[in-house]
Amino acid sequence: MTARGPLLKDELDIVIPTIRDLAFLEQWRPYLSPYHLIIVQDGDPTKKIHVPEGYDYELYNRNDINRILGPKASCISFKDSACRCFGFMMSKKKYIFTIDDDCWVAKDPSGHEINALEQHITNLLSPSTPLFFNTLYDPYRAGADFVRGYPFSMREGVATAISHGLWLNVPDYDAPTQLVKPAEKNTRFVDAVMTIPKGTLFPMCGMNLAFDREMIGAAMYFGLMGDGQPIGRYDDMWAGWCCKVICDHLGFGVKTGLPYIHHSKASNPFVNLKKEYKGIFWQEEIIPFFQQVVLPKEAVTVEQCYIELAKQVGEKLKGLDPYFTKLAEAMVTWIEAWSELTGSEKNATGAAPKSSLK
Amino acid sequence: MTARGPLLKDELDIVIPTIRDLAFLEQWRPYLSPYHLIIVQDGDPTKKIHVPEGYDYELYNRNDINRILGPKASCISFKDSACRCFGFMMSKKKYIFTIDDDCWVAKDPSGHEINALEQHITNLLSPSTPLFFNTLYDPYRAGADFVRGYPFSMREGVATAISHGLWLNVPDYDAPTQLVKPAEKNTRFVDAVMTIPKGTLFPMCGMNLAFDREMIGAAMYFGLMGDGQPIGRYDDMWAGWCCKVICDHLGFGVKTGLPYIHHSKASNPFVNLKKEYKGIFWQEEIIPFFQQVVLPKEAVTVEQCYIELAKQVGEKLKGLDPYFTKLAEAMVTWIEAWSELTGSEKNATGAAPKSSLK
Repeated sequence: MTARGPLLKDELDIVIPTIRDLAFLEQWRPYLSPYHLIIVQDGDPTKKIHVPEGYDYELYNRNDINRILGPKASCISFKDSACRCFGFMMSKKKYIFTIDDDCWVAKDPSGHEINALEQHITNLLSPSTPLFFNTLYDPYRAGADFVRGYPFSMREGVATAISHGLWLNVPDYDAPTQLVKPAEKNTRFVDAVMTIPKGTLFPMCGMNLAFDREMIGAAMYFGLMGDGQPIGRYDDMWAGWCCKVICDHLGFGVKTGLPYIHHSKASNPFVNLKKEYKGIFWQEEIIPFFQQVVLPKEAVTVEQCYIELAKQVGEKLKGLDPYFTKLAEAMVTWIEAWSELTGSEKNATGAAPKSSLK
Repeated sequence: MTARGPLLKDELDIVIPTIRDLAFLEQWRPYLSPYHLIIVQDGDPTKKIHVPEGYDYELYNRNDINRILGPKASCISFKDSACRCFGFMMSKKKYIFTIDDDCWVAKDPSGHEINALEQHITNLLSPSTPLFFNTLYDPYRAGADFVRGYPFSMREGVATAISHGLWLNVPDYDAPTQLVKPAEKNTRFVDAVMTIPKGTLFPMCGMNLAFDREMIGAAMYFGLMGDGQPIGRYDDMWAGWCCKVICDHLGFGVKTGLPYIHHSKASNPFVNLKKEYKGIFWQEEIIPFFQQVVLPKEAVTVEQCYIELAKQVGEKLKGLDPYFTKLAEAMVTWIEAWSELTGSEKNATGAAPKSSLK
């Protein structure tokens, strides 16, 4: 459990790509309403999103993104939940929790509601152990520890950058698996949080995800998806692969497991297949690329690592499709925009925030 | 679940280092009695071990080990449960399940007895996924699958060589942790089996362990521990480190998680500290050694890998203590004995088995 006690009210923003169902915010009210929401509207800017009373929020639509980023807005996806990363850029907080609007409060096996946000914070505030595997899972959890044979010099662990939560009910399957197993539900509650070992890639899902924005935010770019792009549904995967190799390089930890949310409905597998099919093919080359990527010792900040990664993506994946040249450029644009916004942030002299606080 | 249906009655041996409490075999009777036991008596050969009626077993004491191995018996530990690896050598079966006599049948959260052996077999008969992490744990389990973003080319997995089970009640802690937390119990049932990723080392405990003897048996050597040796309680750790780097090199899988056994009592922490203290110090250099070890491409059998590993242990760890020179030699002796016994096995011409089948 966290040694910090209560959650960090001033240190965390909640980023939501869009809200189609107001009941979502009503169900989450006890857990989310103490925090500030950043909503990034992923579709038609003229559509009005209604946020219930009592929530403190800022809302950005495409017009806002264009206005704020100017030509650099090209790096932010349109008509795709990948646009959520614009919210990461606009946040001023240390931690981000991002959640999809079809994710509901889950219950643990004893029937109690799970406070997903609290578990994410616990995960982020306790160290990770990427250098050696602990067979009893999270050694920092109450009632657990490092087992016999775990080197003592590694028991301090490393700081945790990412907490990846899971989903009960509808699992996060790709379109082919959805088509083959349309009725499969995840009913198994695995009571564990674990560190993903150094050197191991994982499929990071953006549905239920928290991270330390100051540590890894600059790499949490969800790529070019949706409108005008050849693929979709690889936004979080791309961010996950990039973040993991950078975390490994910089010695940060990535955890997965608890908390669960209840994922209510599967998206349409036919639509998904259309979005995914190039990605399914491309990932066969992208994964080996990320498995072999080496970042230079001189890259000591996330921004430096990310620029280097963009360079290597441009060089090594361009043969796969011209899309990767464009993506590599967008990665650089993202870092430019990130640095500008977070830099200007630090030099801000009291200018009105670009938000509509309620 | 296994596609093989019932367990493999003619393909598995159970190896037990010693049996101090007959109630152990009585409690396990429904699960273990269909199989053949190999008991390797770890202490005084004049002491008689009583095995209850209805068990089919062979029993080896130190005199038997000396008689069968001759001068090569020097590689088998005396007065230490590390001697169990002699049983791995004597087995003629494809699979081994080894268990300590202070491990009892555990219950799952619904109160049902856990058939640990059945779960180990399920683990060994289904593939492992060491090349990429699946966030929903074992993708081959009923109700689970590979998640979105998992490369399709990796979904066949690789053959599984080792199944490492866990312990409810008394956790497998080292002496310092036992001393600091004398009352800590593991009460958390984590309903998961997972592959330990390629390139990641883990602390393998020999209490509740199964493996494919034909695949990895030659590397399942428990080292030189106990009587006349400077350390104890690192036998299974040593085997685990060696096996893991060889499995990684040869493309075999290693799983951990289910099944649980109920570990009844902690061994004496003061005695353990005496056995462990050099190991606690040495492992700080041993772990980096195993993390960096590279086996040559030409090593394509477990035996070849193990001989190469012995060579590197002799070269790179000898500075730590003269013990490692002796251990490296014992590793070679082990392989010689293993090859002789398993080779002579294949050429056996009806000679009476060295056992006392009941």
